Amino acid sequence: MSPFTGSASRTDEWQHLRVERADGVVTVTLDRPEKLNALTFGAYADLRDLLAELSRERSARALVLAGEGRGFCSGGDVEEIIGATLELDTAELLDFNRMTGQVVRAVREAPFPVVAAVHGAAAGAGAVLALAADFRVADPSARFSYLFTRVGLSGGDMGAAYLLPRVVGLGHATRILMLGSAVEAAEAERIGLISQLTAPGEADSAAGLLARRLADGPALAHAQTKALLTAELGMPLPAALELDASTQALLMNSADYAEFHASFTEKRRPRWQGR
Amino acid sequence: MSPFTGSASRTDEWQHLRVERADGVVTVTLDRPEKLNALTFGAYADLRDLLAELSRERSARALVLAGEGRGFCSGGDVEEIIGATLELDTAELLDFNRMTGQVVRAVREAPFPVVAAVHGAAAGAGAVLALAADFRVADPSARFSYLFTRVGLSGGDMGAAYLLPRVVGLGHATRILMLGSAVEAAEAERIGLISQLTAPGEADSAAGLLARRLADGPALAHAQTKALLTAELGMPLPAALELDASTQALLMNSADYAEFHASFTEKRRPRWQGR
Amino acid sequence: MSPFTGSASRTDEWQHLRVERADGVVTVTLDRPEKLNALTFGAYADLRDLLAELSRERSARALVLAGEGRGFCSGGDVEEIIGATLELDTAELLDFNRMTGQVVRAVREAPFPVVAAVHGAAAGAGAVLALAADFRVADPSARFSYLFTRVGLSGGDMGAAYLLPRVVGLGHATRILMLGSAVEAAEAERIGLISQLTAPGEADSAAGLLARRLADGPALAHAQTKALLTAELGMPLPAALELDASTQALLMNSADYAEFHASFTEKRRPRWQGR
Repeated sequence: MSPFTGSASRTDEWQHLRVERADGVVTVTLDRPEKLNALTFGAYADLRDLLAELSRERSARALVLAGEGRGFCSGGDVEEIIGATLELDTAELLDFNRMTGQVVRAVREAPFPVVAAVHGAAAGAGAVLALAADFRVADPSARFSYLFTRVGLSGGDMGAAYLLPRVVGLGHATRILMLGSAVEAAEAERIGLISQLTAPGEADSAAGLLARRLADGPALAHAQTKALLTAELGMPLPAALELDASTQALLMNSADYAEFHASFTEKRRPRWQGR
Repeated sequence: MSPFTGSASRTDEWQHLRVERADGVVTVTLDRPEKLNALTFGAYADLRDLLAELSRERSARALVLAGEGRGFCSGGDVEEIIGATLELDTAELLDFNRMTGQVVRAVREAPFPVVAAVHGAAAGAGAVLALAADFRVADPSARFSYLFTRVGLSGGDMGAAYLLPRVVGLGHATRILMLGSAVEAAEAERIGLISQLTAPGEADSAAGLLARRLADGPALAHAQTKALLTAELGMPLPAALELDASTQALLMNSADYAEFHASFTEKRRPRWQGR
Repeated sequence: MSPFTGSASRTDEWQHLRVERADGVVTVTLDRPEKLNALTFGAYADLRDLLAELSRERSARALVLAGEGRGFCSGGDVEEIIGATLELDTAELLDFNRMTGQVVRAVREAPFPVVAAVHGAAAGAGAVLALAADFRVADPSARFSYLFTRVGLSGGDMGAAYLLPRVVGLGHATRILMLGSAVEAAEAERIGLISQLTAPGEADSAAGLLARRLADGPALAHAQTKALLTAELGMPLPAALELDASTQALLMNSADYAEFHASFTEKRRPRWQGR
């Protein structure tokens, strides 16, 4: 347990997600296959709260986000989300849309890498969740559909208009978000939206292996790499260089850096502690 | 007519451009084929003023920018622009260069998507106009030449040093803007500079079809997607998420969002109004 | 000699680098082939000071950065850098990491293009030096290894987490910096990390030809193109357009711009002066 835990109680029962923990790797599975893992209000809230809890307690060194069944995630449910929002008042609409953005912010700010394991449909909010992850490990069945305009909404949902141009460039991002057409796996790999393309049916296992490798490695170095990549998107170069200098000075005092040098000198593999 | 129209009179006679309107789609054609549509002081000013007018009056839901004859646009005319600028004083030089930048800003800030239809040469200012558009629909004859250094000027003309790295990445952008070499259609597609590559001779018709699709669809959703893509290039993620939340809350009260839900429930195609 | 030279004396003897000058082209060679050009404290300091001196004195119109022997640069020496940093106190660690960042800042802010000639290994700090250059001219043996996490450090070393996403996009950059896996020449070209891929063994000669072309051309226009590309990564579009307008107004008073017009009128090749 982290020493930085307050009075608020934590839960081990996540009603809207399947959560498994194995030695530093947390696997979060969207588990509503009869609805192509369509998201509900409860699923968004659980993702937001689970990521906040994992970010505080520090037992996670890598996280896999996967989908049960035929696809990754079909996005917000047409009836449970779109139908329901038609009944909300202005303040409630803002609260709902802020909550979905908080999930993306929690993914980007989590102090561990997040690996999305994508097969089949990643649509709407599901496509943005995958986009917010650090790695997208996908098999050839993966289809990314940023289909927000097709329901009459802005393509810039949950940070998509911020993130997608920074991943694939402004030209591709404009086309994808404005038209809402599906991006098949081959195109997604070509334009840099996929981190690792696997053989058919192997997205989950490959994502698990990657998360295991990340968790067993110098996890603090991985976490700081992610933090700098996230922060430096919005910084001028001189500020980024100062952040880099102080981060490296900090890590040069870490156990893992000393361990690298010792293992190199002793011609053996390093034993990483992630601290 | 928009209720937000002041005393300044509008014109329907654009002397330096050909302007056609058809049910929400405005087609602007650079129409000086004997000079490969080289731009003049008047053409820049007309582009600036036409885009400002269209942005106010709200009759346009999509705009096509095309070139008559052998190519899209050869850029500023060597005699009428370069020769003329050699006679300008410091304040006039600044005014001229601000005006060209205002055209690019007007394209990026227009509340409707802009589709450049490119065949043959897109050179100098012509290449930047295409770059500022939301979509570049091009046929295999398209050649993008950011040739500013070849006349002794900065490659960062009219926002090119801002826009090009965000479309194709800093490495390609540096090479293209510093050397001023032509980018042929095949390379342009490979690096993400072309949105849609058409069969030979079909750039204009494909751009027209795309604009028609955009204008007949949920046009307010398209406009807000463009606005967010433009604004979020210069925002930190938390600010972008707040803008996304308030934009989606706004659009969740729109006629088109309700219409999507009704059409889905009634198993019919939506009838978009763009509001 | 520049009129903007103060009392501090300059040196022509760089102990940790080989420096050659030829009519506006400065070639800096990392020359410690028995150690794969591993960097030492002295080499970092010499790079920082040489670039500062060249930026002030204005005799350089282009710079080549190359490596002697089997590869470009293997990065910080395990014993001379990693071993030594284990003995440094907090203030010294910060000083060291600030120094390496100052080298990158000096490359990005130098008022002339920098061409990295890469063959074989470009690893660690060597890979970041190549990344900070304006051009990466590489042969098929080039391998870029951002291996910082593999020694327990942040992948965001010396601005890599700032620069790499802006060159290859956030997805590729995350994978490359977090995992520290080597990027072979073919992948580097595909994702936009290489500016020009040469035949085997021809990186140095091709880089030399490119630098010669840049130095003999409109060098002030090249320098301002670089300055704008660097500055506008961190600017909103309206500010970038104002910078562009004032830069072009300035260069429209330059000798090279008038010379372009004269040479065009007289149907001859321009004689560039770089002013």
